Amino acid sequence: MEHPVLGVIGGMGPGATACFMERVLEMTRAEREQEHLDMIVYNCPSIPDRTAAILDPKAPSPLPKLLAAAGALEAQGVDQIAIPCVTAHHYYDQLAQAVSTPVIHGVRETAAYLKELGVVRAGVLATDGTLAAGLFDRALEARGIEPVYPSRFRQQDVMELIYRCVKAGRRVDPALFDQVGESLRRQGAEVIVLGCTELSLMKSGASLGPGYLDVLDVLARQAVLRCGKPLKARLLVT
Amino acid sequence: MEHPVLGVIGGMGPGATACFMERVLEMTRAEREQEHLDMIVYNCPSIPDRTAAILDPKAPSPLPKLLAAAGALEAQGVDQIAIPCVTAHHYYDQLAQAVSTPVIHGVRETAAYLKELGVVRAGVLATDGTLAAGLFDRALEARGIEPVYPSRFRQQDVMELIYRCVKAGRRVDPALFDQVGESLRRQGAEVIVLGCTELSLMKSGASLGPGYLDVLDVLARQAVLRCGKPLKARLLVT
Repeated sequence: MEHPVLGVIGGMGPGATACFMERVLEMTRAEREQEHLDMIVYNCPSIPDRTAAILDPKAPSPLPKLLAAAGALEAQGVDQIAIPCVTAHHYYDQLAQAVSTPVIHGVRETAAYLKELGVVRAGVLATDGTLAAGLFDRALEARGIEPVYPSRFRQQDVMELIYRCVKAGRRVDPALFDQVGESLRRQGAEVIVLGCTELSLMKSGASLGPGYLDVLDVLARQAVLRCGKPLKARLLVT
Repeated sequence: MEHPVLGVIGGMGPGATACFMERVLEMTRAEREQEHLDMIVYNCPSIPDRTAAILDPKAPSPLPKLLAAAGALEAQGVDQIAIPCVTAHHYYDQLAQAVSTPVIHGVRETAAYLKELGVVRAGVLATDGTLAAGLFDRALEARGIEPVYPSRFRQQDVMELIYRCVKAGRRVDPALFDQVGESLRRQGAEVIVLGCTELSLMKSGASLGPGYLDVLDVLARQAVLRCGKPLKARLLVT
């Protein structure tokens, strides 16, 4: 791979995709612009909402557009594909089967990273769609890690943060976020996973305190590694 | 244009491209993710350095990769093409002739915006390549605006900021930047144009004070407008 190319299926939301591109840059050891990773990015916010589709079989499915982007990336010979949207990983198997290009699984890689850290109980902040799809359940349990989720009441706060704040371009209430995090720690979470890329965006804007692992960071790190670029070594848990 | 698509030839540098994507988001009036603009982004930092190619005929030319990206975007039916790198606009005519898709000219649009504001003397911070190519000379003079450039000595500081700081991922010295800006104002500049997208990146990280017009903002605004998305109205000169 002289000039490896990363394919990105993005736009879910579009801010998270731009943020992902910045994280890839930050994690690459490079002295010159030309040493950074080439990317082809389908940044398509018109892709239907993933949570809505998982929870309501009558809602429009994002799958056709996801498959179209994966196919277009494969046709252009990208070396790896990343999807900076956690909920979209519900469609991972269908995407990975449709192309022969490797697709990075952000949730499984996060579980592997937590395992390396020796974490046994991990808090998870994610969309209703991600929870209903059981994405973290399966990935964490495969590594012997117990997932800790917000109460039904607190989960409404998480969705409020994601949909009424980040996706609508409004300011996030840091107090609301702190309360959710604290409740997971009281339930025994050693690390809290920011398991929705819209929450990653939020983290970029606010100081969250220690003990968070951001799926977007794990995804960016894997993208750099798998495309054979030198990594700036640092611990992802702040 | 039910779902207009913006094509982006980027990676020059890659941080400026991510920043451009964020500016497009910030300038679009949208309540839901799905109301934002779809983009296909060729984020290719492997494109050879533009200033080097303009100043040295033996240096590798960025043109073949620029043409390849423009052709790939046209083949996918994008509605407009934006290039978030000012120096690359040296190749504008060759790109615009190679495709029938409209290509936004960030420098000419900046001159048009300054004209609307009634500016008669505009300071310009840009790369040696952009200056040698006469990009701002031609665009500003066509609108009856007099360009004001840094002295040869100060221009070395501008290149230092762009290459040794932003492109190398290092912190910018705000004092150095202020000195350059002040010297342009003393020469009569009413507004100072950030005429290199690497300087736009710097602006995102630091508070620059009033009186700057960022070419990346002009480009993002034009992209939103030309793709028929509703604009968040605001003055671009801070």
